[in-house]
Amino acid sequence: MTDTTSDANKVGLRPLHESFPNSDKVIISDLEVPARDIRLSNGDMVRVYDTTGPQDIDPKRGLPKRRQPWIDARRERGDQNFSQMHYARQGVITEEMRFCAIRENVEPEFVRKEIAEGRAIIPANINHPEIEPMIIGRNFLVKINANIGNSALGSSIDEEVEKLQWSIRWGADTVMDLSTGQNIHETREWIVRNSPVPIGTVPIYQALERVEGKVEDLNLDMFLEVLEEQAKQGVDYFTIHAGVLLRHVPLTAERITGIVSRGGAIMAKWCLHYHTENFLYTGFAKICELMKRYDVSFSLGDGLRPGSIKDANDEAQFGELEALGRLTKIAWEHDVQVMIEGPGHVPMHKIKENMDRQLEACHEAPFYTLGPLTTDIAPGYDHITSAIGAAMIGSYGTAMLCYVTPKEHLGLPNKEDVKQGVITYKIAAHAADLAKGHPGAQDRDDALSKARFEFRWEDQFNLALDPETARAYHDETLPQDGAKVAHFCSMCGPRFCSMKITEEVREYAKKGMAGKSEEFVERGGVIQ
Amino acid sequence: MTDTTSDANKVGLRPLHESFPNSDKVIISDLEVPARDIRLSNGDMVRVYDTTGPQDIDPKRGLPKRRQPWIDARRERGDQNFSQMHYARQGVITEEMRFCAIRENVEPEFVRKEIAEGRAIIPANINHPEIEPMIIGRNFLVKINANIGNSALGSSIDEEVEKLQWSIRWGADTVMDLSTGQNIHETREWIVRNSPVPIGTVPIYQALERVEGKVEDLNLDMFLEVLEEQAKQGVDYFTIHAGVLLRHVPLTAERITGIVSRGGAIMAKWCLHYHTENFLYTGFAKICELMKRYDVSFSLGDGLRPGSIKDANDEAQFGELEALGRLTKIAWEHDVQVMIEGPGHVPMHKIKENMDRQLEACHEAPFYTLGPLTTDIAPGYDHITSAIGAAMIGSYGTAMLCYVTPKEHLGLPNKEDVKQGVITYKIAAHAADLAKGHPGAQDRDDALSKARFEFRWEDQFNLALDPETARAYHDETLPQDGAKVAHFCSMCGPRFCSMKITEEVREYAKKGMAGKSEEFVERGGVIQ
Repeated sequence: MTDTTSDANKVGLRPLHESFPNSDKVIISDLEVPARDIRLSNGDMVRVYDTTGPQDIDPKRGLPKRRQPWIDARRERGDQNFSQMHYARQGVITEEMRFCAIRENVEPEFVRKEIAEGRAIIPANINHPEIEPMIIGRNFLVKINANIGNSALGSSIDEEVEKLQWSIRWGADTVMDLSTGQNIHETREWIVRNSPVPIGTVPIYQALERVEGKVEDLNLDMFLEVLEEQAKQGVDYFTIHAGVLLRHVPLTAERITGIVSRGGAIMAKWCLHYHTENFLYTGFAKICELMKRYDVSFSLGDGLRPGSIKDANDEAQFGELEALGRLTKIAWEHDVQVMIEGPGHVPMHKIKENMDRQLEACHEAPFYTLGPLTTDIAPGYDHITSAIGAAMIGSYGTAMLCYVTPKEHLGLPNKEDVKQGVITYKIAAHAADLAKGHPGAQDRDDALSKARFEFRWEDQFNLALDPETARAYHDETLPQDGAKVAHFCSMCGPRFCSMKITEEVREYAKKGMAGKSEEFVERGGVIQ
Repeated sequence: MTDTTSDANKVGLRPLHESFPNSDKVIISDLEVPARDIRLSNGDMVRVYDTTGPQDIDPKRGLPKRRQPWIDARRERGDQNFSQMHYARQGVITEEMRFCAIRENVEPEFVRKEIAEGRAIIPANINHPEIEPMIIGRNFLVKINANIGNSALGSSIDEEVEKLQWSIRWGADTVMDLSTGQNIHETREWIVRNSPVPIGTVPIYQALERVEGKVEDLNLDMFLEVLEEQAKQGVDYFTIHAGVLLRHVPLTAERITGIVSRGGAIMAKWCLHYHTENFLYTGFAKICELMKRYDVSFSLGDGLRPGSIKDANDEAQFGELEALGRLTKIAWEHDVQVMIEGPGHVPMHKIKENMDRQLEACHEAPFYTLGPLTTDIAPGYDHITSAIGAAMIGSYGTAMLCYVTPKEHLGLPNKEDVKQGVITYKIAAHAADLAKGHPGAQDRDDALSKARFEFRWEDQFNLALDPETARAYHDETLPQDGAKVAHFCSMCGPRFCSMKITEEVREYAKKGMAGKSEEFVERGGVIQ
């Protein structure tokens, strides 16, 4: 953690202030809610949401357990259902809710109400006391998730922990550990203990490891064992493909890309093998019983999401969505928090239908989509094809956007890919926040634009999502220190600078108007 | 042109087949309309629009003058107004219209009608016989423009010609030469003679050079001289800021970012200096007289476009748009072709209003927008912040999207930046084509998705907008040749591959259904 290399693919992150110059991490209130203050050269300060977590931590020891006293008090009270929804429905405003209220600049009671009514969730396993609570719901800031995880073919534990830290440095609000290879338990332990953001997993991957890849050997009991193991470790939300029903499977046979969700494919295969209903669907109540004891949230997986533009919005996809809506109601009977996963690959004109149908079918439970990608013709650039869809569906009400990296469909993302994915999705989420008119969201845009117009280059860099890249791009053409205060830039040079000319226009306009007034007064103040 | 280096920033482009393996350039019909056929390993072929122009040309000699016989015939006939609109309104289908009809896979009469009614333009100066005609209008494929041009601070002529060639290799449909420094005339000559795509300019830049930067020395006569010089060289469209009116200027005084268009700032300053109306507005008919003799199209500039999210959709911007609508009518009286430039910086929820008002105010003349950027907080990533807005406004009807590179606001784009900008905008344009349901647009998506699902890796790469990058990303994790035909990829490894499982599911589903039928027949075919 003390390495100062600039090579994004080397192990070890540079200190935070090198990534975000002129920024101070601050903590707010007795709950120690984190934020970052960006100090500007004109004395102004812009406060931004902060996901970076505690710094200078020895990863072998893990993060401080900030929530432990809150959770201990509930245990001492003899609570059995620890879910935030359970408390919210009883009218209790938890510390986690207050924490989120401060982070989002809203009233705690508003947070409680959104949770109670299922429109928002706070994924916060009682065995993950290290987290800085965050809220996912369409009446809050749009969040983003980054996926990490080794596969059978590459990546090590150290690398995965560092990818976690790297993801949250650039703004990931939650992280999913999609590990499928060796050391799955140990990798997850390292990740959870070092994560200030909620961790999600897809437990069916570990379940399948346990039966050595034999899908037909999967069953509810062994699946519940896997859930218990992961819940005990502190995983905050589980993707569970309980909506893949036997009758949906043949609906995918004519698709171009069939079933592209791994979990979906596994469950489809199981259903067909036994020609019986998905055990996750039939055993759903038992799963709820387990999850409420830890407050693990559901991320109800869309195992039949479309894997191509052609397959978007078809009967298989929407059939599963209806099933997810029925499961949402069951989870809520147990006060278990729920969000719903969504596609995938969807052309722009079919995106809104996804949001509208999800809201209706799933009773306004938060939507959590993967992109969607708006075209299939640009492998290598799917962070961009999907940012278009993500920004749109975010503006329509999707609460969390799962990032896509440039390596999507092609290979495993390295650190630079993870950063590109996170920054791209911060852009999509923020564009959606602006479109939704989220209070205060535009402040940072305005501060940056003002800095730009006033040639405060350093402020412009420091206010950026990625100050380092902005500065580096500027310096490629104008590396001299003097250029940082120059009243022109390399695009137009001094003579043609429109911003410079505008300043003159403003002066002129003011003088001109004043001159006209004087003239008017001199003429006797009569309107002619 | 024979250099085979892989360094995107070195001078000299690699042969086309290295950028697009397994592709053949083809020419269609007697008009020699270009296209590119991508050959797939399963015997299929996908034909795509091609902007790359003739290859292996000595830039000092320039491209073949393919349109010369068509133009000579019109001159010999004694024509005075050479505009495509003029011919279209007389019911004449020109070679250029037929050419575009083949490229777009529509009837020539449809092209003629769209041009005659002002909904589309074919920018095609009679002194630019080298071009492969293309059409800009909302009932055709969405087009993209790339900007090149040296500034006072950098770049050489050789580099600019190479940027042109590089831009069209990746898909730019038109190129604007925004040079403002030394050798402006010579640079342009090189660019026009080597460009198979229409070239646009902003003539006020050269006019200001000519008066040594003294805005007050600008006037209509000297401006017309500049236009004549550029029209004679073969520039296909001029950005002219004739809609910046004296009364609009004070409307910008309270903006965060005032006037950010260089041309707009220059004209605003001129108006204020003389406290009189913009000479481009008052002298507009004379400009039309000149342009129709060469068939130069107007790109009516939005000199008061917003430069920040805060300034979007304000009175200054929409006031100018109304003026551009009045000018459109005047241009059309001269049968001069017109498109209208649009913003800029616009949050997502204000984008549609731009399109709706433009269609109404400007009588359906094609809209040509710069992005728009949907947030200001990501300098270094403005190709992405703007691709979101570009895809959206394209889906609403914008006919051409001006690209934005990662260096926007920060510095001059190098070759890699140009490529990033072009590919990103091809994505936005194509996403919009899909959303508009453009006939056949989805064929390439479907072919690529099918290749992906069938593990035809080479086909997947070759169908991509950027095959090189797709292949390189794949090979980072799985460099072995065998992996190109492997029925799994590095994301999941062999055991978890959902696509592999889906294949099994399909087989199983088919057998299962067949089995059920047999069983049914065996039972005597009675529904129980």
